[in-house]
Amino acid sequence: MLKEEKVFRDPVHRYVHVQDQVIWDLIGTKEMQRLRRIRQLGTSFYTFHGAEHSRFSHSLGVYEITRKIISQFERHHLAEWPQEERLLCLCAALLHDVGHGPFSHSIEAALHMNHEDWTCRILTENTEVNQVLRKVSAEFPDKVAEVIQKKYPKSIVVSLISSQLDADRMDYILRDAYHTGANYGTYDLERIIRVLRPHKGHLVIKESGMHAVEAYLMSRYQMHWQVYFHPVTRSSEIILTKIFQRAKALYESGYQFSFLCSPMDYLIEGTVSVEQYMMLDESFIQMTMMQWTLEKDHILSDLCSRFLHRRLFKYTSMEQIDESLIDAVRLKLSQCGYDPEYYMAVDFPSDLSYDVNRPGMLEKKIPIYLLTESDELVDISEKSHIVRSISGIHNGMHHLYFPEGII
Amino acid sequence: MLKEEKVFRDPVHRYVHVQDQVIWDLIGTKEMQRLRRIRQLGTSFYTFHGAEHSRFSHSLGVYEITRKIISQFERHHLAEWPQEERLLCLCAALLHDVGHGPFSHSIEAALHMNHEDWTCRILTENTEVNQVLRKVSAEFPDKVAEVIQKKYPKSIVVSLISSQLDADRMDYILRDAYHTGANYGTYDLERIIRVLRPHKGHLVIKESGMHAVEAYLMSRYQMHWQVYFHPVTRSSEIILTKIFQRAKALYESGYQFSFLCSPMDYLIEGTVSVEQYMMLDESFIQMTMMQWTLEKDHILSDLCSRFLHRRLFKYTSMEQIDESLIDAVRLKLSQCGYDPEYYMAVDFPSDLSYDVNRPGMLEKKIPIYLLTESDELVDISEKSHIVRSISGIHNGMHHLYFPEGII
Amino acid sequence: MLKEEKVFRDPVHRYVHVQDQVIWDLIGTKEMQRLRRIRQLGTSFYTFHGAEHSRFSHSLGVYEITRKIISQFERHHLAEWPQEERLLCLCAALLHDVGHGPFSHSIEAALHMNHEDWTCRILTENTEVNQVLRKVSAEFPDKVAEVIQKKYPKSIVVSLISSQLDADRMDYILRDAYHTGANYGTYDLERIIRVLRPHKGHLVIKESGMHAVEAYLMSRYQMHWQVYFHPVTRSSEIILTKIFQRAKALYESGYQFSFLCSPMDYLIEGTVSVEQYMMLDESFIQMTMMQWTLEKDHILSDLCSRFLHRRLFKYTSMEQIDESLIDAVRLKLSQCGYDPEYYMAVDFPSDLSYDVNRPGMLEKKIPIYLLTESDELVDISEKSHIVRSISGIHNGMHHLYFPEGII
Amino acid sequence: MLKEEKVFRDPVHRYVHVQDQVIWDLIGTKEMQRLRRIRQLGTSFYTFHGAEHSRFSHSLGVYEITRKIISQFERHHLAEWPQEERLLCLCAALLHDVGHGPFSHSIEAALHMNHEDWTCRILTENTEVNQVLRKVSAEFPDKVAEVIQKKYPKSIVVSLISSQLDADRMDYILRDAYHTGANYGTYDLERIIRVLRPHKGHLVIKESGMHAVEAYLMSRYQMHWQVYFHPVTRSSEIILTKIFQRAKALYESGYQFSFLCSPMDYLIEGTVSVEQYMMLDESFIQMTMMQWTLEKDHILSDLCSRFLHRRLFKYTSMEQIDESLIDAVRLKLSQCGYDPEYYMAVDFPSDLSYDVNRPGMLEKKIPIYLLTESDELVDISEKSHIVRSISGIHNGMHHLYFPEGII
Repeated sequence: MLKEEKVFRDPVHRYVHVQDQVIWDLIGTKEMQRLRRIRQLGTSFYTFHGAEHSRFSHSLGVYEITRKIISQFERHHLAEWPQEERLLCLCAALLHDVGHGPFSHSIEAALHMNHEDWTCRILTENTEVNQVLRKVSAEFPDKVAEVIQKKYPKSIVVSLISSQLDADRMDYILRDAYHTGANYGTYDLERIIRVLRPHKGHLVIKESGMHAVEAYLMSRYQMHWQVYFHPVTRSSEIILTKIFQRAKALYESGYQFSFLCSPMDYLIEGTVSVEQYMMLDESFIQMTMMQWTLEKDHILSDLCSRFLHRRLFKYTSMEQIDESLIDAVRLKLSQCGYDPEYYMAVDFPSDLSYDVNRPGMLEKKIPIYLLTESDELVDISEKSHIVRSISGIHNGMHHLYFPEGII
Repeated sequence: MLKEEKVFRDPVHRYVHVQDQVIWDLIGTKEMQRLRRIRQLGTSFYTFHGAEHSRFSHSLGVYEITRKIISQFERHHLAEWPQEERLLCLCAALLHDVGHGPFSHSIEAALHMNHEDWTCRILTENTEVNQVLRKVSAEFPDKVAEVIQKKYPKSIVVSLISSQLDADRMDYILRDAYHTGANYGTYDLERIIRVLRPHKGHLVIKESGMHAVEAYLMSRYQMHWQVYFHPVTRSSEIILTKIFQRAKALYESGYQFSFLCSPMDYLIEGTVSVEQYMMLDESFIQMTMMQWTLEKDHILSDLCSRFLHRRLFKYTSMEQIDESLIDAVRLKLSQCGYDPEYYMAVDFPSDLSYDVNRPGMLEKKIPIYLLTESDELVDISEKSHIVRSISGIHNGMHHLYFPEGII
Repeated sequence: MLKEEKVFRDPVHRYVHVQDQVIWDLIGTKEMQRLRRIRQLGTSFYTFHGAEHSRFSHSLGVYEITRKIISQFERHHLAEWPQEERLLCLCAALLHDVGHGPFSHSIEAALHMNHEDWTCRILTENTEVNQVLRKVSAEFPDKVAEVIQKKYPKSIVVSLISSQLDADRMDYILRDAYHTGANYGTYDLERIIRVLRPHKGHLVIKESGMHAVEAYLMSRYQMHWQVYFHPVTRSSEIILTKIFQRAKALYESGYQFSFLCSPMDYLIEGTVSVEQYMMLDESFIQMTMMQWTLEKDHILSDLCSRFLHRRLFKYTSMEQIDESLIDAVRLKLSQCGYDPEYYMAVDFPSDLSYDVNRPGMLEKKIPIYLLTESDELVDISEKSHIVRSISGIHNGMHHLYFPEGII
Repeated sequence: MLKEEKVFRDPVHRYVHVQDQVIWDLIGTKEMQRLRRIRQLGTSFYTFHGAEHSRFSHSLGVYEITRKIISQFERHHLAEWPQEERLLCLCAALLHDVGHGPFSHSIEAALHMNHEDWTCRILTENTEVNQVLRKVSAEFPDKVAEVIQKKYPKSIVVSLISSQLDADRMDYILRDAYHTGANYGTYDLERIIRVLRPHKGHLVIKESGMHAVEAYLMSRYQMHWQVYFHPVTRSSEIILTKIFQRAKALYESGYQFSFLCSPMDYLIEGTVSVEQYMMLDESFIQMTMMQWTLEKDHILSDLCSRFLHRRLFKYTSMEQIDESLIDAVRLKLSQCGYDPEYYMAVDFPSDLSYDVNRPGMLEKKIPIYLLTESDELVDISEKSHIVRSISGIHNGMHHLYFPEGII
């Protein structure tokens, strides 16, 4: 433990409290500091100009919520709470996003990467994070990785970090709402923490807290439709994905880039080392795109200009996929000199992971359990009309994206 | 005017309203979009992790406050308000920071630049901003520049954009408070707008609003001492300044950089064109520093590592400059192999511009005028004890910065 | 119009703006001032100690929201908006609750009164409100009454004041949430106002605003279950109802009250004049109950003590009405010397009006209409899963109330 | 201790946490419940319609802040904190206002009473509060009374409840700001609690927290001038004082009141018992005034009408007391048939207790001590320009009040 508690001022939680030397040291590692240069919401700042906050801020927030939950367990539910897991939970909370790359939603799609794999490599390979964790014990880095990969045997530990009602979601809904200015994302965190409790190895909710959980799920629902799936954000993500598809195609065809700073080459090849990965941040990507606006390949330079100067694709909505419309747009694009492979995309928002509890998915996802007064566990969707109603929702709208002026 | 008003969601003002085609077009220029990649508070995010907001957000905010003030003038004080200046004020408000470079406080100090000069160049040379402004009239770009340079003949127009109580300060106090989480920065903007009025060509405050202005000035005072002058922020700014001093010295000595991407060379030489300046943003600087962590010059690579991984200088406070302490530190640095030119700095926060109305500076600064019930103008510092008390405050503390472990 | 706009500082809307002499004069009438002595949420302060705000505050809030909506219509939808109805709408908004008596939910139930009738009497009989309204025109008081009674021929005027999405609900959800501290009740009022528009005589919502309306309806749903139907509040309402049932029974039996200050006698008899009604406020009722704690009738004095000193009834929940339980409690009460008529009650919260749009009630209630991009009107419950899911919700729980210690 | 912590939802602190049976029982006493019927800000609701909150809410808030401070002491400063005083502090915090009568500022002035005396009587005579306290120990009621009377020997205990920086002020500034909607009253409570510490028997502030205390004192300063001393509020207080002066004069002259409900008679005579005092609340006073609007004494009935229907006195400001103006107004009043004794008043706001730390008053008031890094105690006004500047402020304005239309 630290001699004196340290605090960070945080706009969402007011203060983030650090009591453990290990947590303090982890925050100071260069792997954690790198997250300051990666935005929490990727390209959403093009839709909501306030959405400029980083994964570093979010990581501190997830840590703080986890700390508060555990502190409540220690005060009120000591018998059911495995105290020895405290530090493990806190470290996993803080580090759960450490493997995120720049604009990960879009670039991972184009380059077939996965940030969770990177998180595990950072935890277990030769990094500052690994050094700090090893001071706890030799197997501690692997244990943290197991929690993040949801392989750790104790369900309650995993559930705190990743479940329907975990510290990750609890923080990002509040934080994203705060920075975008979308005021749908306010639910009563303090009350949710009060009604959470450990019960026979599971994380459950006291039944009297059902309405608070409904409000949390509604906030999440609203944030998905109004922020995360916003068509303007999707448009910018699509352009970004196309940029990296194009760069990869050019690279593989032997094109000579005017600007190609290492480790971009390794990134495209899929052979980046952990040390190189640490140099990859949104500055690296944005500066590269800025230099690429000067490339002679017109598609690459045009897409980069579009992204940086926010000349995004427009879209039209389709209730069902309309092949004749798509064909017409493809034809028009070709006539106008646009390559449809890079200037057109069909998007269906719920393709993005939206994991509100659905009846048909119970085998995969752990539901949110209510603990009734008679000490039984009931899936919240059995008790709550609201939860049931949002469980299975698909947005029927497909969006077709293309450059302005095409239709 | 636009056919339909457009809005941006803003966390501070809730919505930013755009009614004019010119404003809409200006926001879409690449010069304005570049401000998304320049943080409002420079390196303050190292002290307050939430302070990641951009100059783009702030610029919209200044525009919005100006729009609200003018709208109030048009509704209630039409006789005293020069209506024909509306669009000029709005454009100057939106564009007042367009010339800011990356981390401008620190880099301008090292490279002897000035963002206000750049603003004027962007307004008047061959840019998208200039094209949009010329559509209003051929001399419009120059008029906007005059307002921003405080040379425009109508005092009220200049005062809206830069004075003791201007839309710029009104926005940044609220916005910086919002994002840092420092809740000192909340004053009653709506009330200040209500008591502002045009009076014989000046911007004045109805006397009954004096306490609201006191509260605004106190917020500003608190933000200066608790946020803007925070020693941790100053430490990161000092390192940044040293990096660019070192790069300049190396460049001038003919050092061969492993990484030196144009227009960094022109920047150091002081010969950047407007077009090149548009490529300079915080991504460019951060990526360059990241590459420089691999440079063979140890001072440059070490300072860049310190900055990026937040291994900042520590400090000690001195009531008066203590030459013997400074000499002792200088000696110790040399003994430890640190070049004191790059590893030590003395800082006195009020060297930064802190322009609360001071009696002795009345010849230079326009005071905040109260309009009494008998229609006289009185300097607020004559009426308010509070304002008088903060007018002449210097912080007596000098800070001496150096690497950890030296003392 | 007033020479200078006047403002009230309001914790919910920040400022309430008054521009019309008629509105200013109405606020100053003694009928409106009386609402300062009647709480907005009746006995809810026993559950949420902050819920001490008055109907006066709420009335100003409903007026202010109506003013903002109309101002938006005048700026953006002038063609569809009947401008001549502006003042009528504002007056109806301000006065819609002027007939509320003290603790009206409970006392009206016991004494078979109706606050809407009283509102109409206050508008049309010899009152200060009537005098102010007559200055507009001789038939103006009747027109205001028609709007409040939903008999005014123009649907849009009525809808602003009473419909699924009216200024009344919009204010009380925000205000009650603010004062109780329940943070479920925050939806985006500003956005709702932006997407509201007049359309062929109806009040409709632009389809793109559907999610904002969902959020509003969810806030309302949460406020109903967490605040308005709270069992502790219901308990205090039940006691209050019983007090007045008892007082009526005693009065009708010729009981000699130690304290019975006029117009309590007329109130019980049902023959109160408007002038007498103006003397009835929550001070009158509370002081009367305080004096009645000294009455020799033990039931009356005990119930009054219970109410004033918050010795409320406890409750048990029943999925279905359980007659054998009720009989058992009744028996136990008699054995303990309690008269079951005054010491027991069964309550089913949805008996209270909870009028979220239900499919089966469309004949009575005007739905919330969305205006699609192809200019059609669609009931929001056809488009929104969420709205559909909360439309038909009944809470299955009955509550049985009785004094502590009985079970 | 309670088996399970109980909470109250509070709009200012979000939740009030109760852990002790004694606290829970005290809250349930009829003496504490009476505070629900006494407003925290007296007649301020006539100026700020939201200011309808009760002393009950405030008392819970003072308790909660005290609880948080002590909890921080127990976690971080155990060596310096006399643990055995915890419950005493909590009880004194909760009960410090229990003796307040209705509209105490005005009525105490007219009837020469003192709410602190009443608090002590309620603590030590035959009351429910006394019974609960005696369960702790026979001398506990007296100890609580000593703390509230500032006679308890341990300075730190007294300071928590009444000093320049006590839980009482900390709560009321935030709460009054919240309910009035005046957003001057927001300072960083959480930070102040963090920098407070026990030190050699005193309550002190870590020097690094000086700016936070400055912000708190500025909030207090603003609240005094913008809320507590507001001339409209003073006007209503003056009328109330005059009503009770008149009632006393009439009573002493043998006037036969149409309505005079006991214990009003004992109140005027100054012989109220504790039991009778418990029947006195703002309902009692308001209903009495409502009945008195029907009295045949025209002065009494007119003043009561003025108060209830908010027909307040107007005022004019005077830099110095202007005897000729006062004489002129007095003459005019007599000519118009008004008795100047009841229809005129001169008011000087700083006559009200405004106890910001003043250099000349140090013998009486304990200053706010900063604990420097070298472990010395320094009066904050020696270190802070701001504090010094507001220490000695008098508002130079006298206000002369009289009925509308006189001047």
